[in-house]
Amino acid sequence: MEAILDGLRVLEISAFVAAPLGGATLAALGAEVIRVDPLGGGVDLRRWPLHRGRSLYWQGLNRGKRSVMLDLRSRRGRDLVARLAAEMGTVLTNLPEREPLTYPRLCERRPDLVMVSITGRADGRPAVDYTVNAGLGFPWITGPEGHDRPVNHVLPAWDVATGYLATTGLLAAERRRLLTGHGGLVRLSLEEVALVVAGHLGLLDEARLVGEPRGRFGNHLYGTFGRDFRTRDGRYLMVLALTPRQWHGLARATGLPFERIPADLTDEGERWRHRREIGDLLEPWIGERTLAEVAATFEAHEVLWGPYRTFKEVVAEIDREPAVALDFGGERPPAGPASRPGEHTEEVLRELGEDVEELRAAGVIA
Amino acid sequence: MEAILDGLRVLEISAFVAAPLGGATLAALGAEVIRVDPLGGGVDLRRWPLHRGRSLYWQGLNRGKRSVMLDLRSRRGRDLVARLAAEMGTVLTNLPEREPLTYPRLCERRPDLVMVSITGRADGRPAVDYTVNAGLGFPWITGPEGHDRPVNHVLPAWDVATGYLATTGLLAAERRRLLTGHGGLVRLSLEEVALVVAGHLGLLDEARLVGEPRGRFGNHLYGTFGRDFRTRDGRYLMVLALTPRQWHGLARATGLPFERIPADLTDEGERWRHRREIGDLLEPWIGERTLAEVAATFEAHEVLWGPYRTFKEVVAEIDREPAVALDFGGERPPAGPASRPGEHTEEVLRELGEDVEELRAAGVIA
Repeated sequence: MEAILDGLRVLEISAFVAAPLGGATLAALGAEVIRVDPLGGGVDLRRWPLHRGRSLYWQGLNRGKRSVMLDLRSRRGRDLVARLAAEMGTVLTNLPEREPLTYPRLCERRPDLVMVSITGRADGRPAVDYTVNAGLGFPWITGPEGHDRPVNHVLPAWDVATGYLATTGLLAAERRRLLTGHGGLVRLSLEEVALVVAGHLGLLDEARLVGEPRGRFGNHLYGTFGRDFRTRDGRYLMVLALTPRQWHGLARATGLPFERIPADLTDEGERWRHRREIGDLLEPWIGERTLAEVAATFEAHEVLWGPYRTFKEVVAEIDREPAVALDFGGERPPAGPASRPGEHTEEVLRELGEDVEELRAAGVIA
Repeated sequence: MEAILDGLRVLEISAFVAAPLGGATLAALGAEVIRVDPLGGGVDLRRWPLHRGRSLYWQGLNRGKRSVMLDLRSRRGRDLVARLAAEMGTVLTNLPEREPLTYPRLCERRPDLVMVSITGRADGRPAVDYTVNAGLGFPWITGPEGHDRPVNHVLPAWDVATGYLATTGLLAAERRRLLTGHGGLVRLSLEEVALVVAGHLGLLDEARLVGEPRGRFGNHLYGTFGRDFRTRDGRYLMVLALTPRQWHGLARATGLPFERIPADLTDEGERWRHRREIGDLLEPWIGERTLAEVAATFEAHEVLWGPYRTFKEVVAEIDREPAVALDFGGERPPAGPASRPGEHTEEVLRELGEDVEELRAAGVIA
């Protein structure tokens, strides 16, 4: 079977997470993706985590792409990128657009161009995941109960959501291009992605309609039963009961006298209101058992649960790291190494019919 | 301009976040999306947050769709859904597949069917965002420094990423169908989405290659400079310097004697190593000023920063809540209300040519 995005060609002009994640995802689905960076590398080339001076972050976000480096400060370098963009037909970027790398100018060369442009704020001003998240409310409801400061997420969740939504937007525009021949410019911002997601989850309407502001509930899952527990051997696990069936499973698995709690605990709101009492019963039951013992009982009763792991435990236990989480039924490539930065500069420029030696002499490439 | 996904018809069989978010996104882009639920509603119909007994969560995740309710426990009800799936041509689901609502059986009715199936774990076993996140390592590196327990995220980030990646997968399969006439089954799991994202961010390679486990650094952004500060008027803000340019902007904006710190602070690693000294200088500077004063100075010097806001502050300040963050240049619909659960049961079944009164008498619909 051919790769699912066979024939799609994407030029990526990017840094950090959102556009590179989008490009790496498209590449893993079989698109040809070329990432362009300035001479010497972009601002994210040495982003931590590092290993022996190499950025594991850059490597992880740029798998499956060809890497081209050019003097992007020079008009000639940017003109070359514009030629390449026209040739590829699709552009994915999260950097400020500079002439001639703007949608209208690129369309002069390639009328059916599809271009996806990611910004920080909706009006184009800069913002990053960590300012967007601060501005949205989540840091005030994340973290230990009683903590009096905001708690940032470490996962750049808005970058990730934006990167994946960007590929959705790109493929939506590609669909229209296939059907009508018309390209288009697709814009999205980290700020609006975050706002729209908060809206989908009901958090904006809650803030509008409910008098009391949302509290901070630590590791409790709001509005139902779910929290962390510690086992006898010092491991931690999450236990949840989102549905009546899961609640019955938990009750059967533990045999605990939840019926002493004077409420209909098959109702999620009642589980939430009585989360302390439920937890008080579960805590010693789990605390007297090892993780392995709890696991065996919970699995036998289809309890919704899972152990906490550190990243070191994760890599010790996984046997496979696919390049993309989408499985179309064929062989999926494993997550391979990224190219060496600038590795394909000459190759790509030769394919464009350029005189590589002359470009080097002119300082446009290294 | 026609909506970008004009002509795409999607049947959604879903609950909770990932598939409903995907369906709502496709609907906001102009696809016709019908969500099917069991009689009386699915397990997520009353999920918190609530307002006057109505789930703001369900409302937020089901905008723009038509809602159909059928007796899904009966073979006849499931057969009707299978007919509807064949008619629509595309299925998006995150529920266990039951006959005849499986890909092979649906293909008998509609050979070019595209079906996107989301599971919790890669092997199809159940998992939810909160167990997947526990199992991946993030809770041990999130939250206040010195805290000795895992810290859960409140944002179901893996549900969100999976929902958006599902739409990418759906449109990738739709592209192949347009080009070749072949449909296909697309599988993805919350567990693998989380694993792949951690891999992209370098966290898995870090755990493999770096001896020391990643620490917990509170609101500091790992490997560069970024953290929260409190202003004189009791507001909090994030300040970051990810690039040399942003670092120079911060130094100019504050006029603080960062040159006394004996390191080249244009290097991100040096900013990380000296984050305490940088913070010690910035803390009183910000603490002596109001948020408005800091904002004016930072904006004038293009500092990368942003205030923390509560959800109540967010909704007081925003003037627009779009239905989707993707902007294709036309009018974007605002985030509208969801349908009443089951509102379109009769309408949709009549379009299928069914005898609605007979179905009601048989108990297949309410």
